[in-house]
Amino acid sequence: DFLGALEEVRPSFGVAEAELQRCVTNGVIKFGDHIERILSDGQLFIDQVRNSERTPLVSVLLHGPSGSGKTALAATIATASDFPFIKLISPETMVGFSENAKMATIAKVFEDAYKSPLSVIVVDCIERLLDWVPIGPRFSNAVLQTLLVLLKKPPPKGNRLLIIGTTTHRDVLQQMDLSEAFNADMYIPSIQNLKAIETVVSGINLFSDTERFSAMTYLNDAWKDQQPSIGVKKLLMIAEMARQDLDKVDKFVATLLDEGSIPTRK
Amino acid sequence: DFLGALEEVRPSFGVAEAELQRCVTNGVIKFGDHIERILSDGQLFIDQVRNSERTPLVSVLLHGPSGSGKTALAATIATASDFPFIKLISPETMVGFSENAKMATIAKVFEDAYKSPLSVIVVDCIERLLDWVPIGPRFSNAVLQTLLVLLKKPPPKGNRLLIIGTTTHRDVLQQMDLSEAFNADMYIPSIQNLKAIETVVSGINLFSDTERFSAMTYLNDAWKDQQPSIGVKKLLMIAEMARQDLDKVDKFVATLLDEGSIPTRK
Amino acid sequence: DFLGALEEVRPSFGVAEAELQRCVTNGVIKFGDHIERILSDGQLFIDQVRNSERTPLVSVLLHGPSGSGKTALAATIATASDFPFIKLISPETMVGFSENAKMATIAKVFEDAYKSPLSVIVVDCIERLLDWVPIGPRFSNAVLQTLLVLLKKPPPKGNRLLIIGTTTHRDVLQQMDLSEAFNADMYIPSIQNLKAIETVVSGINLFSDTERFSAMTYLNDAWKDQQPSIGVKKLLMIAEMARQDLDKVDKFVATLLDEGSIPTRK
Amino acid sequence: DFLGALEEVRPSFGVAEAELQRCVTNGVIKFGDHIERILSDGQLFIDQVRNSERTPLVSVLLHGPSGSGKTALAATIATASDFPFIKLISPETMVGFSENAKMATIAKVFEDAYKSPLSVIVVDCIERLLDWVPIGPRFSNAVLQTLLVLLKKPPPKGNRLLIIGTTTHRDVLQQMDLSEAFNADMYIPSIQNLKAIETVVSGINLFSDTERFSAMTYLNDAWKDQQPSIGVKKLLMIAEMARQDLDKVDKFVATLLDEGSIPTRK
Amino acid sequence: DFLGALEEVRPSFGVAEAELQRCVTNGVIKFGDHIERILSDGQLFIDQVRNSERTPLVSVLLHGPSGSGKTALAATIATASDFPFIKLISPETMVGFSENAKMATIAKVFEDAYKSPLSVIVVDCIERLLDWVPIGPRFSNAVLQTLLVLLKKPPPKGNRLLIIGTTTHRDVLQQMDLSEAFNADMYIPSIQNLKAIETVVSGINLFSDTERFSAMTYLNDAWKDQQPSIGVKKLLMIAEMARQDLDKVDKFVATLLDEGSIPTRK
Amino acid sequence: DFLGALEEVRPSFGVAEAELQRCVTNGVIKFGDHIERILSDGQLFIDQVRNSERTPLVSVLLHGPSGSGKTALAATIATASDFPFIKLISPETMVGFSENAKMATIAKVFEDAYKSPLSVIVVDCIERLLDWVPIGPRFSNAVLQTLLVLLKKPPPKGNRLLIIGTTTHRDVLQQMDLSEAFNADMYIPSIQNLKAIETVVSGINLFSDTERFSAMTYLNDAWKDQQPSIGVKKLLMIAEMARQDLDKVDKFVATLLDEGSIPTRK
Ligand SMILES: Nc1ncnc2c1ncn2[C@@H]1O[C@H](COP(=O)(O)OP(=O)(O)OP(=O)(O)O)[C@@H](O)[C@H]1O
Ligand SMILES: Nc1ncnc2c1ncn2[C@@H]1O[C@H](COP(=O)(O)OP(=O)(O)OP(=O)(O)O)[C@@H](O)[C@H]1O
Ligand SMILES: Nc1ncnc2c1ncn2[C@@H]1O[C@H](COP(=O)(O)OP(=O)(O)OP(=O)(O)O)[C@@H](O)[C@H]1O
Ligand SMILES: Nc1ncnc2c1ncn2[C@@H]1O[C@H](COP(=O)(O)OP(=O)(O)OP(=O)(O)O)[C@@H](O)[C@H]1O
Ligand SMILES: Nc1ncnc2c1ncn2[C@@H]1O[C@H](COP(=O)(O)OP(=O)(O)OP(=O)(O)O)[C@@H](O)[C@H]1O
Ligand SMILES: Nc1ncnc2c1ncn2[C@@H]1O[C@H](COP(=O)(O)OP(=O)(O)OP(=O)(O)O)[C@@H](O)[C@H]1O
Ligand SMILES: [Mg+2]
Ligand SMILES: [Mg+2]
Ligand SMILES: [Mg+2]
Ligand SMILES: [Mg+2]
Ligand SMILES: [Mg+2]
Ligand SMILES: [Mg+2]
Repeated sequence: DFLGALEEVRPSFGVAEAELQRCVTNGVIKFGDHIERILSDGQLFIDQVRNSERTPLVSVLLHGPSGSGKTALAATIATASDFPFIKLISPETMVGFSENAKMATIAKVFEDAYKSPLSVIVVDCIERLLDWVPIGPRFSNAVLQTLLVLLKKPPPKGNRLLIIGTTTHRDVLQQMDLSEAFNADMYIPSIQNLKAIETVVSGINLFSDTERFSAMTYLNDAWKDQQPSIGVKKLLMIAEMARQDLDKVDKFVATLLDEGSIPTRK
Repeated sequence: DFLGALEEVRPSFGVAEAELQRCVTNGVIKFGDHIERILSDGQLFIDQVRNSERTPLVSVLLHGPSGSGKTALAATIATASDFPFIKLISPETMVGFSENAKMATIAKVFEDAYKSPLSVIVVDCIERLLDWVPIGPRFSNAVLQTLLVLLKKPPPKGNRLLIIGTTTHRDVLQQMDLSEAFNADMYIPSIQNLKAIETVVSGINLFSDTERFSAMTYLNDAWKDQQPSIGVKKLLMIAEMARQDLDKVDKFVATLLDEGSIPTRK
Repeated sequence: DFLGALEEVRPSFGVAEAELQRCVTNGVIKFGDHIERILSDGQLFIDQVRNSERTPLVSVLLHGPSGSGKTALAATIATASDFPFIKLISPETMVGFSENAKMATIAKVFEDAYKSPLSVIVVDCIERLLDWVPIGPRFSNAVLQTLLVLLKKPPPKGNRLLIIGTTTHRDVLQQMDLSEAFNADMYIPSIQNLKAIETVVSGINLFSDTERFSAMTYLNDAWKDQQPSIGVKKLLMIAEMARQDLDKVDKFVATLLDEGSIPTRK
Repeated sequence: DFLGALEEVRPSFGVAEAELQRCVTNGVIKFGDHIERILSDGQLFIDQVRNSERTPLVSVLLHGPSGSGKTALAATIATASDFPFIKLISPETMVGFSENAKMATIAKVFEDAYKSPLSVIVVDCIERLLDWVPIGPRFSNAVLQTLLVLLKKPPPKGNRLLIIGTTTHRDVLQQMDLSEAFNADMYIPSIQNLKAIETVVSGINLFSDTERFSAMTYLNDAWKDQQPSIGVKKLLMIAEMARQDLDKVDKFVATLLDEGSIPTRK
Repeated sequence: DFLGALEEVRPSFGVAEAELQRCVTNGVIKFGDHIERILSDGQLFIDQVRNSERTPLVSVLLHGPSGSGKTALAATIATASDFPFIKLISPETMVGFSENAKMATIAKVFEDAYKSPLSVIVVDCIERLLDWVPIGPRFSNAVLQTLLVLLKKPPPKGNRLLIIGTTTHRDVLQQMDLSEAFNADMYIPSIQNLKAIETVVSGINLFSDTERFSAMTYLNDAWKDQQPSIGVKKLLMIAEMARQDLDKVDKFVATLLDEGSIPTRK
Repeated sequence: DFLGALEEVRPSFGVAEAELQRCVTNGVIKFGDHIERILSDGQLFIDQVRNSERTPLVSVLLHGPSGSGKTALAATIATASDFPFIKLISPETMVGFSENAKMATIAKVFEDAYKSPLSVIVVDCIERLLDWVPIGPRFSNAVLQTLLVLLKKPPPKGNRLLIIGTTTHRDVLQQMDLSEAFNADMYIPSIQNLKAIETVVSGINLFSDTERFSAMTYLNDAWKDQQPSIGVKKLLMIAEMARQDLDKVDKFVATLLDEGSIPTRK
């Protein structure tokens, strides 16, 4: 029964809430239209799990460049579901775990979820869960096989489950038949225009108005033939570094130009 | 004796029935002639096992693209045999098992089957049982060798066994000498015409008549130079996603066009 | 002394007899002259072991395509020796064994044989004993080394031993220096002419005379530019499948044409 | 609370101080402007950690050729922070450790740091921590994955952490996605001009004035078409070797010319 | 003291004698001048070990094609030394041993030898001791390293040791730096002329004079453009096989022509 | 304190002395000027360790062809230091050790050395300590990493350490970053002129004067277009072999010509 199930999973739920909050340290700044679209698409998957009898298991993969906000958005979508069981599977809680311990931890979360009528599991940074490294390449095949099976195994009759994965290396997951094990995917892009950068620095009160105008002018000139391309996470880091410097504008612009652009594809 | 043997295997049988039912969540929709032909070919193998003294062991491999219905059809054929011992070997029940545990589990099912006068074993998703991944490639040679031997080892005098395997990677099994260890194989195709798609969506009451007509018209136009190619499992998933959307027809058509076609070979 | 030795090995002998019988389920049909020649050559090796003081250890490798009858013939030759110790080493009795258990099992059979004045050991399906798979390739080097040594290690003074190996992958054994560890080899061909096929189907009473004539006519026409090439084991399987069908002749001919031919080398 | 935390970490702090001192055996000689710049940039990172609420975790990688002074500078920056928790993770204290022991040791230092409001961890000679060797290449993927996660895992709410890594093989770390896990990096060059060499030998009183003049003249002549390139660590070693010789100038110049130059890029 | 040492090693000596005898089952037939030369060269090494103070450790590698008589000759030389400690290290006594057990067994023999004033150790079939297989290639590096060290480690002051190795794969040993660890080597050729073949078959009384003449005439004719090339071991095997046949001459000639020749290098 | 430290390490010292003596069985014959130069260069390193405050750790690698006298010279230099702690790390004392046991043994010697005010450690035949084999290549990365760290880890304040390594495969060590972990290296050449050969055979009284003259004349003629190249160790072995022969001169010259020359580089 529903209440009993709720009872059973509540403790886990509490833990997850704190963990999920930590994934969104700097909030979700609406620096572009796509942010809202991603969140509402996420809501559609939640609705499908809640409503469709025929698809008790739905899975979606959030992928995009490093620091583009995948984890924060996955956590935000999961939290918005209000499902009785929401849990984060993250490499950060498995430091130093053996392959077997990782597999057991992952399997345990799924088994707990199977007991709840409605569940969300966020599987964060899949390449790290797999101990993947491009040299070789090497990775834990045991963890991979565990995920490959769990991504397709439906919960027991009556219960439903949404799985949200995140990765910066979708190409790698594709080679492993892992990305095709997801029912859908969503691309989380890096920031690629000045307007969005301005929105972010405004959001964290880095500059006075004059400073901001000056910084944006510099950047605008510098990026004639180039397009900015920077993850929101790195942008926040650069902003905070600049904040320590005597000449904030200069430090901000210089560091950003160093790291945050790609040649415009004409 | 027959009755004693029946007695002995009955508990296992009960378990398998539930497991096999779960493989056919959305029924077997007759969206093409080949569906019936596959089922009746399956019946021939069952007859051979029941009748032929000379071939106490028969094995057949169901192969085809992802989500084409292999598992559902294997389960349906097995259930139709009405043999006293019917069992499913599936990676889903072996999450986190060690190589040795997998081998033991598989061997145990065969040993149980050897005690029954007539048995069917479904070996589902063989590449996953082998922990196979294309990078490397890597796989469990121990599990592979177990299967290679069990596929050719006849049951003890007087008893008979049908083995039904499924795989999406027959090419891989071929490289491992595993597909040639089967006595026969059957190809389970994806859906490749509009009529079949229409039959499926009708079967699950996705659209009103107007909606369906509209959707089919769209698809017909869009697929002038392309051929649809989609597994029935993915088609059902797309249909259920569309069901959540305000504009079901649009969502259905758009997603299907995104995922479900291949260029026509002229 | 001879009697004591007999005493000692008798229990093992009993077991082997049953095991060896199971290797010849469908008898040895004389569908060609070479069958008799192989059996009489086998007898020569038995005589050599019985008579020659200088060669207390003789070994012969039976090789040929899949299902050509290697195991059945090896078992037949071994049984014909009437030696007090006859034993089968087969992967089928070692399902799920560890590498060490396999080595121990193999070594034990040889140690038992060393105690008998006259012994035959059949080492069946060597590539499977080695856990060999072409991908990699991978195999158990430990089991391989055990065989490499045992194939050349003479029994203790006074005792004699014949080793009969079988394999479908003689090329692989050659790469491992394993085939050259045998003193001799015999090739067991697949069936390559219509007459032999007819002899086999007659032997198992598949057809009425009319049916057989009709089937052979079809096949004769179809194989104008091709040569049949099919193992007797597969031929028997196809015959039994056909037996279930309403139109036996059609099913038999169709399946055989599908699987059993190679282009004639002109 | 702050005091309690201080209490807790003090013992570790004491140990680290001695360990960090040993990394700067021969002091930090100011043989070029960049030395001061590196130290003041290091101070900026310390300030950011102390001040920014938004970036509780900052990491910087010191990289450069063998013996260029990376470890000495990392230790100097860390010591200058005056944070209550300063710790060195070095391969020198893990000789003969198993992979697991290394992982546990590293994880323990981070866990201790998480308990302190302000911490610095120096991760010295990362390629050695990883047991990296170019042949293969081989390395401990388990230790690598541990570092990859710990470099991105923020300390618990309220606490802050600066991570300073050092490596001579930044290219290798790049292939492992490890260098991009750092928020910033600083290049520590080898000595590439005669003036700096003179400053160093003066600093350790190797020569009389005449001797030094003579040595520098020799070197100046010899390096017409070449540029000196030598780590300060190796330079000190050569100087001390020369000190034992009867003809100090000759030994110094000869050894330096042997080891310390690269063709000038014109 | 000499007598005590003798005492100590005698039991081992006894065992070895039997083992060494079994290596020369069919005696040493003098079918060519080189046989005597090999034996007298072997005597020189024994003399060196007995007499030279400066070379307490001497090692020689007997290499040559399969079955050319290496083991028999090594055993013969060793036995001829009359040293108080003579021991055989052979893969045949280590069937199923783990890598560690092999290393321990080998090391034990050397340690025993170190206690005797004068010792000979025959290390037979080195590639097999190493578990070597050309696929990969694979081999036991641990056993290899053990041999590499023991081949160069002098016995304690006052004691002396001769090591005689045998191999069919000297090329492999060369790639492993193992053949250069021997102080000398001797080539044991296969039989390459008719005269030697005649001497061998005479030695074992295979034919009547007429038969022998007839056989030699056949072979002489057949080998116009080819050179016989057959190991004495295989020749003896073929002779004994022929002995069972009704037509001995025919069987002997046919089998020999099948296996025992190489194109003459003109 | 100095005396206490002496006390502590003395037992180890005693053992080492005997071990080091065994490395110089045939003395150090002064067959060329470079022998003295190598020994006096070795003395310089000893002086540096004794005198320089700034370089408490000095390491030098002796490398050169097989049998050129590396171990004997390393042992001679170490013994000449008269330091209170002198120890040999040699593969010969670690036969059959596991990787862990090797690491522990090596680490223990260094830890003992750290307790002595002045120490020398000879690390003999490094490629063998690493279980290195060119096929693969394979080697113990664990032992390698242990050496890589210990070669750069300074002893505790106040104590000093000289490390002398030897190897025939400096190229291999270079690929492993191991040769660059040494502060210096010295090349130990093989014997490459007739004069040196004469000095050696004189030193061991192999020939009468007439014999020696005759041998040298032969060699001189034979080596018109070639240069002798032979390790002193092998030369001594050849000399002792010749000593057993009736015709010493002939055996000596023949064997030497076989093994000891390289084409002159013109
Ligand atoms: N619109 C936004 N979307 C996502 N994150 C945002 C947004 N606005 C601000 N942020 C902040 O940016 C940071 C994004 O970091 P996050 O860890 O989610 O990135 P990521 O893509 O998962 O990084 P990585 O590739 O390292 O896993 C968070 O601190 C988050 O609070
Ligand atoms: N004609 C049909 N044949 C097979 N399955 C059908 C058919 N009609 C409807 N279905 C439904 O479609 C789904 C087919 O999924 P199934 O798991 O059998 O596919 P699969 O080919 O085994 O997939 P995978 O490649 O992932 O293993 C099931 O839910 C089944 O009930
Ligand atoms: N002349 C024959 N020679 C061999 N087997 C025959 C012959 N006639 C009939 N048979 C039957 O054919 C079958 C041959 O199968 P067998 O297992 O010996 O083939 P195999 O070559 O060992 O197959 P595999 O390659 O799978 O090991 C047996 O059932 C045997 O009774
Ligand atoms: N300006 C300087 N910067 C760094 N080190 C200096 C400087 N002046 C003198 N030194 C001394 O030079 C030595 C530098 O050695 P250090 O171990 O730091 O080099 P490293 O780059 O870490 O070497 P490795 O590449 O071997 O790790 C130390 O003994 C240090 O005291
Ligand atoms: N002149 C001879 N030299 C060596 N062996 C001889 C000679 N004459 C007869 N024999 C016999 O030939 C056989 C040689 O076999 P042996 O095992 O020594 O060959 P091998 O070269 O060691 O073979 P393998 O390559 O298999 O190790 C022995 O039975 C030996 O008694
Ligand atoms: N001048 C010399 N230098 C070195 N060794 C000498 C010299 N003169 C005579 N010898 C003797 O030559 C032998 C040299 O052997 P040593 O083991 O040192 O060579 P190595 O180069 O270490 O050999 P390997 O490459 O096998 O390790 C010793 O027995 C030593 O006593
Ligand atoms: Mg993330
Ligand atoms: Mg399936
Ligand atoms: Mg068989
Ligand atoms: Mg350093
Ligand atoms: Mg041999
Ligand atoms: Mg040496």
